Amino acid sequence: MTTVGFIGLGAMGTPMAWNLDDAGFDVVVYNRTTDHEQPFAEAGVSVADSPKHLTKRSDVVCLMVSDGDAVAEVLERDLGVLDGLDESTTVVQMSTIAYEETMAAAELVAEAGARFVDAPVSGTVGPAREGTLVGLAGGDEAVVEDVRPVLAAMCDPVVHCGGVGQGTNMKLFVNLLLGNAMNAFAEALVFGRKNGLALDDMRTVVGSGGLDCPLFAGKGAAIADDDFESRFPVDYQFKDLSLALARAGDIGVPLSQTAAAREAFSAARARGYGDEDMAAVLKPLEEMANVSVNDD
Amino acid sequence: MTTVGFIGLGAMGTPMAWNLDDAGFDVVVYNRTTDHEQPFAEAGVSVADSPKHLTKRSDVVCLMVSDGDAVAEVLERDLGVLDGLDESTTVVQMSTIAYEETMAAAELVAEAGARFVDAPVSGTVGPAREGTLVGLAGGDEAVVEDVRPVLAAMCDPVVHCGGVGQGTNMKLFVNLLLGNAMNAFAEALVFGRKNGLALDDMRTVVGSGGLDCPLFAGKGAAIADDDFESRFPVDYQFKDLSLALARAGDIGVPLSQTAAAREAFSAARARGYGDEDMAAVLKPLEEMANVSVNDD
Amino acid sequence: MTTVGFIGLGAMGTPMAWNLDDAGFDVVVYNRTTDHEQPFAEAGVSVADSPKHLTKRSDVVCLMVSDGDAVAEVLERDLGVLDGLDESTTVVQMSTIAYEETMAAAELVAEAGARFVDAPVSGTVGPAREGTLVGLAGGDEAVVEDVRPVLAAMCDPVVHCGGVGQGTNMKLFVNLLLGNAMNAFAEALVFGRKNGLALDDMRTVVGSGGLDCPLFAGKGAAIADDDFESRFPVDYQFKDLSLALARAGDIGVPLSQTAAAREAFSAARARGYGDEDMAAVLKPLEEMANVSVNDD
Amino acid sequence: MTTVGFIGLGAMGTPMAWNLDDAGFDVVVYNRTTDHEQPFAEAGVSVADSPKHLTKRSDVVCLMVSDGDAVAEVLERDLGVLDGLDESTTVVQMSTIAYEETMAAAELVAEAGARFVDAPVSGTVGPAREGTLVGLAGGDEAVVEDVRPVLAAMCDPVVHCGGVGQGTNMKLFVNLLLGNAMNAFAEALVFGRKNGLALDDMRTVVGSGGLDCPLFAGKGAAIADDDFESRFPVDYQFKDLSLALARAGDIGVPLSQTAAAREAFSAARARGYGDEDMAAVLKPLEEMANVSVNDD
Repeated sequence: MTTVGFIGLGAMGTPMAWNLDDAGFDVVVYNRTTDHEQPFAEAGVSVADSPKHLTKRSDVVCLMVSDGDAVAEVLERDLGVLDGLDESTTVVQMSTIAYEETMAAAELVAEAGARFVDAPVSGTVGPAREGTLVGLAGGDEAVVEDVRPVLAAMCDPVVHCGGVGQGTNMKLFVNLLLGNAMNAFAEALVFGRKNGLALDDMRTVVGSGGLDCPLFAGKGAAIADDDFESRFPVDYQFKDLSLALARAGDIGVPLSQTAAAREAFSAARARGYGDEDMAAVLKPLEEMANVSVNDD
Repeated sequence: MTTVGFIGLGAMGTPMAWNLDDAGFDVVVYNRTTDHEQPFAEAGVSVADSPKHLTKRSDVVCLMVSDGDAVAEVLERDLGVLDGLDESTTVVQMSTIAYEETMAAAELVAEAGARFVDAPVSGTVGPAREGTLVGLAGGDEAVVEDVRPVLAAMCDPVVHCGGVGQGTNMKLFVNLLLGNAMNAFAEALVFGRKNGLALDDMRTVVGSGGLDCPLFAGKGAAIADDDFESRFPVDYQFKDLSLALARAGDIGVPLSQTAAAREAFSAARARGYGDEDMAAVLKPLEEMANVSVNDD
Repeated sequence: MTTVGFIGLGAMGTPMAWNLDDAGFDVVVYNRTTDHEQPFAEAGVSVADSPKHLTKRSDVVCLMVSDGDAVAEVLERDLGVLDGLDESTTVVQMSTIAYEETMAAAELVAEAGARFVDAPVSGTVGPAREGTLVGLAGGDEAVVEDVRPVLAAMCDPVVHCGGVGQGTNMKLFVNLLLGNAMNAFAEALVFGRKNGLALDDMRTVVGSGGLDCPLFAGKGAAIADDDFESRFPVDYQFKDLSLALARAGDIGVPLSQTAAAREAFSAARARGYGDEDMAAVLKPLEEMANVSVNDD
Repeated sequence: MTTVGFIGLGAMGTPMAWNLDDAGFDVVVYNRTTDHEQPFAEAGVSVADSPKHLTKRSDVVCLMVSDGDAVAEVLERDLGVLDGLDESTTVVQMSTIAYEETMAAAELVAEAGARFVDAPVSGTVGPAREGTLVGLAGGDEAVVEDVRPVLAAMCDPVVHCGGVGQGTNMKLFVNLLLGNAMNAFAEALVFGRKNGLALDDMRTVVGSGGLDCPLFAGKGAAIADDDFESRFPVDYQFKDLSLALARAGDIGVPLSQTAAAREAFSAARARGYGDEDMAAVLKPLEEMANVSVNDD
């Protein structure tokens, strides 16, 4: 039976780890702070006292931590993952980090003789609970196939995007599209409302044609409820668009619409909405146009 | 039994008129050139020899012609609609025309003592055939309710968007969103492909998350097939974004992302793709970035 | 001696007409309202009681009125310019109007058998007083040369830009550049101030290098004085950028930076600064970034 | 007499060092490769065999090297500047580097007990030869005043922009404005030419009004001569706009026009013009619009 170590029990990581447990894997977890480990311990799931010990016991080690610095730390610290690695282990890096950080982590793991899969996920807490995250896997085909059952416990579908780094690039691709679409929705709603259209009617129309999608349905409902509690905050979307534009500059793809979208998220941050859900990108535009999309 | 006159038997109008016939209305049709009337005549549908005569026989007159000039002509010409109007008739203007043109047509009809509904539709030939166009109705509630059965024969849903002119504004709203979304998809695909991602994988990922919608599914498939035959051409999308930006300027809504999208469609026109499907907005970007999205 | 009729004694037209008088031409003026004619009458300059009478007495008729509708009216009204025209007269249209309006006016004048020069000017009231407006002349070379002395009394330099309509196109060209440059200055100043730089230092640096120009010197001083009294208002600059983008769309030139500039002026209008000098384009950005460029 | 060490004898550094010599300072130079030192040695100027030895002999040490990595290396290497520093020395960092790199260099120098001025320059090789670079000094007022005579030998004016780091921020400010202005000129020229205007006439008009500046005069002449030899290449302008936008995102200033300008330079790089002068930003637009600005 495959033993899966899971490091990082945050809002996303916790339900992902439970899904591994539900799928019948032998699971061992680790979190930097112990409070998030407690429910697992109470349910009889193994808890390791360091990344090193977790790694030594695991066939596959999943990392789901906050950012690239956290990935580097959990690998390189004393009693870190690298200390416990050998050639029988595969590290599956699932945190959303930069391309360069992915490649650096992959190199450290390779130097330790182990295998590496780059597997960020697309989706928020809901899909994490339901096991329907979109898994974006980058790595050698054989390695990705070996860990596919592990990924499939958390993700549906699992898409093999190419070699190491291509999972990260796919994540940038999808978040670039997401940020553009979100701000397009914001511009359209403010334009329509200023023209005298009702939010409910605009939502109905969008939900009835070629643009009918979970994003517009969900954000439309949230805006109607004046609910900007963050599923994915303005700050993160801004960061992802900035990363995408930086990479687009490096590889020679001019993206003028995406650049405009990034500045809209920058405006939302500048106006103090960085911590709110990315739907708050419409707020500076409402202020500018002196209209509220969800009034009656 | 309600008699419905239908003027304009083009690619959209023809299936819309058939749907009226199928729904059991007493239908009379007119087209500027007679060849498009022929199949109706052969099937026993009445054909009028002028808009005036069509109007005299109809309770409801639907207009589905090419543009604002054609609407003005069919109303004002000798033996035109206005010549046949009286207070028992309702004119339902379904062509996509400018807001000012809508208001001018409404005024002419009101001066003739008749009732007017502004009802452009969202959707292409497929939904026109299936009767699933999104009907965007503007007019007094009572009048819209009276003609709702007529609209429902061609459209599902029928959304009452407000007074006269609001159907047109809703059309601008939805096409603004459509143009932004299409170009966002183009930028994302070129970015992703230049990064080494495969088109199929990008389509799978987009189809698996919050952005899963008919637009991206359909355009993704068409791009994969190198099929840029027009459902809705670059030229029309460019025109609609230009109209939306002109109106946004009038009402005080700055739309920097939409402005960037308009210039992308302008680039596609400049490069000679104006007659191709709006998905061709990705072609200038492919040329710029020296990459083909659908190569292997 | 050449008799020059001058129609339109507004803020620009009045000093222009005086310059013609100072240059020794036999001048006859007309204004729709008589109050602006009074100072000329008092100084012994001829005042006509209609455009027709002015035209009958003049070799060259200059038009400097508010917009394209005013040009059409002064030509076509009862006792209008067209009523007084014959083949010995040249009409010099100096108002800033659209390309299509220029061509329509030219056609009317040609049908009356007279000659036409399209000659909008670049510059504000200061250069109008000093006779240093930039004259942008479009028309047949021989005709432009014939009226060059007249233009030279008001303008320095006079640039022959091509056939009829090219004066108008040159005006769009220069105002497109002006609007872009103004908003670039606004973005740079807000960026710099938010970074902690002092406005005076930024002005010094801009005035010391490749960007040293009257625009930045003048607008920089006005911003420092919190003086947004209009030389050229936000509304006009917005209109000119809109006209330029409409024409760019027609001729197939995608202009993504200019499109972004237009939306910045749109934001200034939306925020209520339409009547202020175009330098007020920086105000929405100051509000967004929560910084004042000219504080200490 | 003040002894000035000068490190970095490239295209800019060489004339700057000569200007120090001409101004009567006791100069000692160092370059990583010795060939650039040769002319100085032949003229009797001291040449140091390491940054350390140069520093030990100097009151003021000027750094004018290629980038932030080169600054770090010349400070920290064996026999580097830090090895020779003491509290009697002032380091004047004149290379164009990132804000964070400036602050890191300043900290290293401060830890060594010496004083630091951040003094990047604005201008190209011509002004470097003539001693008319714009010096953008950041540092404590007393320290900047102490080294002002040194800076004044190379720069006119020398602008004190604030504390350490503000020289670098002023450089970003001015290059942000420069990039916007350059691309505005490109968009205007392509628009005008496609409209049928002649380049010479457009240059005359720009040179006659509020936009008359060395940048447009110089780039206009170069474009007319089809001369895209680099004074300041597309790649550098792209890098500077990217740095400015990154910093604008950090400090909360949305810059949508600048973002559009950056993508225009990105397009020029993507099309292969990265090494050409920044005026080549017009080339992709010429290709898109199928027009050549400088044809006849």
